[in-house]
This record gives sequence, C-alpha cells and structure tokens, in this order.
Amino acid sequence: MRDAYLVGAGQSDYGAFPEESYRSLFRTAFEAAADSVPDGIDREDIDEAFVGTLGVGGRQLGLPGPAVTEHVGLGGVPCTRVENACAAGGFAVRQAVQAVGSGMANVVLAGGFEVMSDTSSDAAKYWLGVSGETEWERLSGTTFSGVYAQMASAHMERFGTTEEQLSQVAVKNHSNGAKNDHAQLGFECTLEEANSAPVVAEPLNLYHCCPTSDGAACAVIVSEDVVGEYTDDPIRIAGVGAGSDAVGLFERDTYTGVPASRRAAESAYEMADVGPGDVDFAEVHDCFAIAELLAYEDLGFCERGEAGALVESGRTDLGGELPVNTSGGLKSKGHPIGATGVGQIVEAYEQLAGRAGERQVEGPVRGLTHNVGGSGGASVVHVLERERGVGA
Amino acid sequence: MRDAYLVGAGQSDYGAFPEESYRSLFRTAFEAAADSVPDGIDREDIDEAFVGTLGVGGRQLGLPGPAVTEHVGLGGVPCTRVENACAAGGFAVRQAVQAVGSGMANVVLAGGFEVMSDTSSDAAKYWLGVSGETEWERLSGTTFSGVYAQMASAHMERFGTTEEQLSQVAVKNHSNGAKNDHAQLGFECTLEEANSAPVVAEPLNLYHCCPTSDGAACAVIVSEDVVGEYTDDPIRIAGVGAGSDAVGLFERDTYTGVPASRRAAESAYEMADVGPGDVDFAEVHDCFAIAELLAYEDLGFCERGEAGALVESGRTDLGGELPVNTSGGLKSKGHPIGATGVGQIVEAYEQLAGRAGERQVEGPVRGLTHNVGGSGGASVVHVLERERGVGA
Repeated sequence: MRDAYLVGAGQSDYGAFPEESYRSLFRTAFEAAADSVPDGIDREDIDEAFVGTLGVGGRQLGLPGPAVTEHVGLGGVPCTRVENACAAGGFAVRQAVQAVGSGMANVVLAGGFEVMSDTSSDAAKYWLGVSGETEWERLSGTTFSGVYAQMASAHMERFGTTEEQLSQVAVKNHSNGAKNDHAQLGFECTLEEANSAPVVAEPLNLYHCCPTSDGAACAVIVSEDVVGEYTDDPIRIAGVGAGSDAVGLFERDTYTGVPASRRAAESAYEMADVGPGDVDFAEVHDCFAIAELLAYEDLGFCERGEAGALVESGRTDLGGELPVNTSGGLKSKGHPIGATGVGQIVEAYEQLAGRAGERQVEGPVRGLTHNVGGSGGASVVHVLERERGVGA
Repeated sequence: MRDAYLVGAGQSDYGAFPEESYRSLFRTAFEAAADSVPDGIDREDIDEAFVGTLGVGGRQLGLPGPAVTEHVGLGGVPCTRVENACAAGGFAVRQAVQAVGSGMANVVLAGGFEVMSDTSSDAAKYWLGVSGETEWERLSGTTFSGVYAQMASAHMERFGTTEEQLSQVAVKNHSNGAKNDHAQLGFECTLEEANSAPVVAEPLNLYHCCPTSDGAACAVIVSEDVVGEYTDDPIRIAGVGAGSDAVGLFERDTYTGVPASRRAAESAYEMADVGPGDVDFAEVHDCFAIAELLAYEDLGFCERGEAGALVESGRTDLGGELPVNTSGGLKSKGHPIGATGVGQIVEAYEQLAGRAGERQVEGPVRGLTHNVGGSGGASVVHVLERERGVGA
C-alpha cells in the first residue's frame, strides 16, 4: 500500500454560532487547513474529498459532501459523505488514507462538520437522539447519556472506579482546553466544581458530559509520491484501524469496554508496527468522562480496570508521560459530531508540527487519535508519526 | 492499484413491504449475494463493509452501517456508511474498490438499502424532500420532480426532444422490468398509456417518474490476490469514476447535461481503457425519463441532443445494439435510494454471469453502471468486464 501523509490540518472555533452556516464553518476549516500546509497547496491539486457529518443541522441531509466542497471551490472533485455517528470524521480520514493507498488519488481532503445549536426543525431534534440504538434504546426512553451512565456504573461496580476519578478527567481536559483558542468551554474547573455539578444521568454529572457544538475541521492527506511538494517535515499516517459492533449497548459482550475500539487499536498498532508504549500523546473520544477511562484500557494505555488510577496518577496530564486530550478533548474543546474525528487529527498535526503553543508536548514523534461512533457501534484509530526528512 | 473483482451480488424484491424492516431487507440481499458466489463464501472471509443509505426509513439514522452488518453476522467487521443521496449505493461500491485497491482489505461487502414506504415519522417525511438542494430549491417550493422537469423542458426546447420520446423510455424499461421477478412495477405499458398519464411536474407525467421503494442490494468485491478462491469466471471492476457538482441545479453550468456524470464516465473509461462503443449493456440512473436521455449523452452513447432519437431507434431496447436498463431501471424495477447503485451492480453481475434469464443480453463481455445523486450533485460510473479464466 502507498503510504499516506498528513500535510495540513485546521479547524473553525467550536461553539454555538447562530450567525454561521454549515458551509461557512466548513470554509473556515478548509482555509485553515490549506494555510497550514508548509509549502502551500492549490485547490486544483485536490483529487478527492471525504466529508463526515451526522447531519444534525437539518440543512442539507442528502449530498452534504458536495454541498460543502463546492462552496470552497472544489466543484467537480469527487466527494463522498461518510457517517458512523460521532466517528464520522475519523472514518472520513480513514477513507482518505484508503483513497491514497489505492492509487486512485494523490491529494485528498478529509473534512467534517456539524451544526447542533439550531434545533428549530423537527428533523434536527430527532437527530439528536439517534446516536444510540433507535428501536430498543431511544424509543424505550434511554438517553445517550443514560447509555454511557450504564457503562460508568458497571465500571465503578466491577473495578471500584470513583466519581472523583470521572471528575479528574474533566479537570484535566478543561485545564488543557483553557489553552486552546478554538475550545468551546475553554475555562478551567476545580475538582470540587466537577464533583458537585448537577447530575445528568447518574453517576454522570454535567462535568462528566461534553457539550453539543457547531464546528468544522479539515485535513489534507497526500500520497508518498507527492508529499515532497508540500512539506520537508512529513507526518506519516503510519497506522489505521477500525472496528464495529452491535449499535445497542445491550447487545454487546461487555459494558466495561468497547470491543470495536480494541479491534481498531490492534489493527492500527499492527499496521504501524508499534505498541501503546510507543505513543507520545493521544486524543481520545471523551464524549463522557467514562469514555476516556474506557479508552485508556481499550487502547492498552493501562490494564483493564486501572484507568481510574491512571488519570489519578497525573500521567495523562499535559506534563505527564502520556498526555491525553491536550486539545481539551470533546469535554472542553467541544463535540460538533462530524468534525470531532478530524479535529483530533488537527491537534495531532499541531503537536507533531510543534505548533501547539501552550499545549505543546515536548518533542513528540508519535501521536494517536481515537474516535468512537455512538456508544461503540464503530471505532477508528489512527497512529501518526513525524518523519523528518522523508520525502524531502 | 490492485484489481478488484465482483464475485457475487444479490438483492431483495423492490416494492412496499410494511412487514419488513431495513434489517430484514438487508439480510435478504446479503444472503442472495453470498449464495451467488460460485465457489461459496463464509462470513469470516469478509474484511470490511460499506453501506449506502440516505436514511429515509427514519429508523436508525446514525450508524445504519453497523446496524445492518451486525444483523447479518458481521459484527466486529469495520463498516462505514457512505451517502451521496440517490448515488449512495454506487459510492459504496466505489469505496469497496478503493479498500481492495489500497491493500487494506481482500474481501469487501458493498451494500445499500432504503425503506421509503414508512413515512410515519416527521423525520421520514422531511427526508423525502432533501435530495435536491435544501435552502434555495426545496424551501422555495421546488419539488424534486420539478427540478428534473426543468431539465426536461430545457432539453426539449434546445434539442427538440419530445414527450413521446420520454414515454418511450418508460415503455422500454417497463418491458424489461416485466421480465424481472424483483421489480416493483413489473408490468408492461403501452406508448399510449405512457403518453396519457397524469402530469406530475410538466412536462413529466406519472410514467416519466420512478416510484418510491423499499429494498436492499449487496455485492461482494474481492482483490486479485484472492479472486481464485471464489470463482473461475471472474468479473473485473475495470473502471471506476466519480464526479460532483453544485447540489442546486440553478448553480450548474448547464441544464441539458450532468457534468458530474460526464466527469465520472471519462474517469471510468480512462481507467478501463475503453470507450462508450466498447460497452455491451448499461444500467443508467433513470429516476425520471429525462435522466435516462441525459445519461445517453453524458456517457457518450450518442452526441449531445440526440438521446431522444436514440431511444426512438430501438438501439437501447433489450434486443438492440446497446441495451439500457435491462433490469427495468429505476422506473420499473424501483428506486430504494441507497440500494439502487448496488442493485445496478446486481444486474451487471447477472448479465455478465449469464444468469439474467429472460432479460439476458447475448454474450456480453462488458457492462456499465451509472448512478446519480440528487439532480447531479454527485455521480459514479463503473465499468465491469468478464475475464474468463483470470485468477483461476
């Protein structure tokens, strides 16, 4: 397979932007991504595009891909929407890697967006409830936070994980997000504040849940044959892995882990020929605080049941051995569904390119991104490596 | 790029099936596809899946891919939904070819489905209006048939195309569909009946419009490395092409052609190293009768403006030089949106494998499929070739 390289990535702010449209948000992200390419890129260079969105905005539910690419001047270029709920963006990146790998494209745009603040249409309200399983979860009255609350309860009962450990995820991610100009909730919070917030779905409180967000993100992925035209400091997409599972939690083998993520991580590590110990930082899918803890275990950052202790140890803090969610994560940076997986790639790009400012991890060589759809119906993991000089 | 081969394809009936679910329809199609593989296939062989659906059914709008693959026993296998409105299925097939081409998968399932007969939810009703551009077409009161009516009017005015020629598309496709057990409207119609049907959107009448449908279709696509395990009579996916354009007709360069289809056809012909004259039969996207005529011109089957004369000549009839829509097309076979592009592949498979029964074209070597999203916001073309003995 031809190697794929990440040569640029950028995003809009995440937040609630009633004055913006999905197209204007996507344009902001596209221009930021194009501007970030070290040696520049022209629209004419782009062979293909993949766009991830769940379609919450209620604006253009069919053909949202061509609707945004045409708006940024890529009319004519093949564009396909990919969707796996909250992992739509991560799967858009994966399809870009496959397109490059196949030889059918040399320069591919992977983007994602969502507009969640406008729920004026019935369709938009409807969409907000469909990330879980529809027939047996949603229509039976289970909310999406309720699904993750069941996972949290099971993990607490089986492994002794505490509410305070859940709150520590929030404290860490808000501390990082406070250093990110694009973050929706870019403020710090204390452990006391995070512990005492109102309950959303027991045991999850407000600080254990990410916000709903508007936003967009884009990444430019190119083949090994042309990477030298865009940068002298290439970042290789060394590993890509994906997995799926039953959409409904009640049909899974376990409540205390996400099998789709384990499978995705195994595939990505195998393709990159590395292990979890080789990762210098990670962006993981913390839609709820318990999801970040499950990710630690599914990705092999610690043994099963030890995630609570891991976050407590400070090792996943910005200054720790394995910083996690340096961007602020979904919790603080925000979670515009289709944008999220691509936004993780933006953070990985900025870290590996040494452009993360106050959030900069010291000299990272390898980063990992982890994006989950629903409560684990799909999962996708990328391993990115800085390869100074390759392709120069 | 590694070559991709089609080794099996099958579908459900198309129609209105209140007693079926999207999952049960998909299962029927999956089992038909698996059963059609000459040397058999096991679920464990399948590395990856792509599923096309617009989501009209209103059942599981997020994660519909894993929801159906898990139901047919493929839980765990990476599955990604792809969507480009009515071309969702064709793009699912294209992604399967890219996945095989990239080396990341050897055996890929491409499927599609839609449930359009159940419009009990607001979301489902909403969906039925979104295949066109939302903000400037749909919300301004333009129906989807109205968009195609504008294209028909322009073609009639510019080239002298007649309503009778539109009706001849219907007569031909109903004649073919009457020979297809899976067809929703599997009955013949006379030219007089087709000419005198009630107007839907002038100049298009009821016989110039396809029905809305429930249905599913699946195809099994494998790499050159493993094709010999599944068949001694391989069908190569020799060419794949795609294009996009502005979603709204009003923003396009022309009303009398579909630029995205022209681009898709050029790419597919170039990849296959053939021209339109090398094609023995074609399945084209006849959501409205004018769409089939535009396809003749966009695919190079005749010069610009001559499509009306081409259908009138009988050359695209089942017994003609270049039979088009031997399945009955969207018009007679039906149009369950996400299934349609994969269903075209099913017809190409049956024709190239010599299993098309009463609809069989004599000794075809090469077939083409053409699947359009919206009124031309996206388009995808495949060229399939029988290669007896390769991989044996």
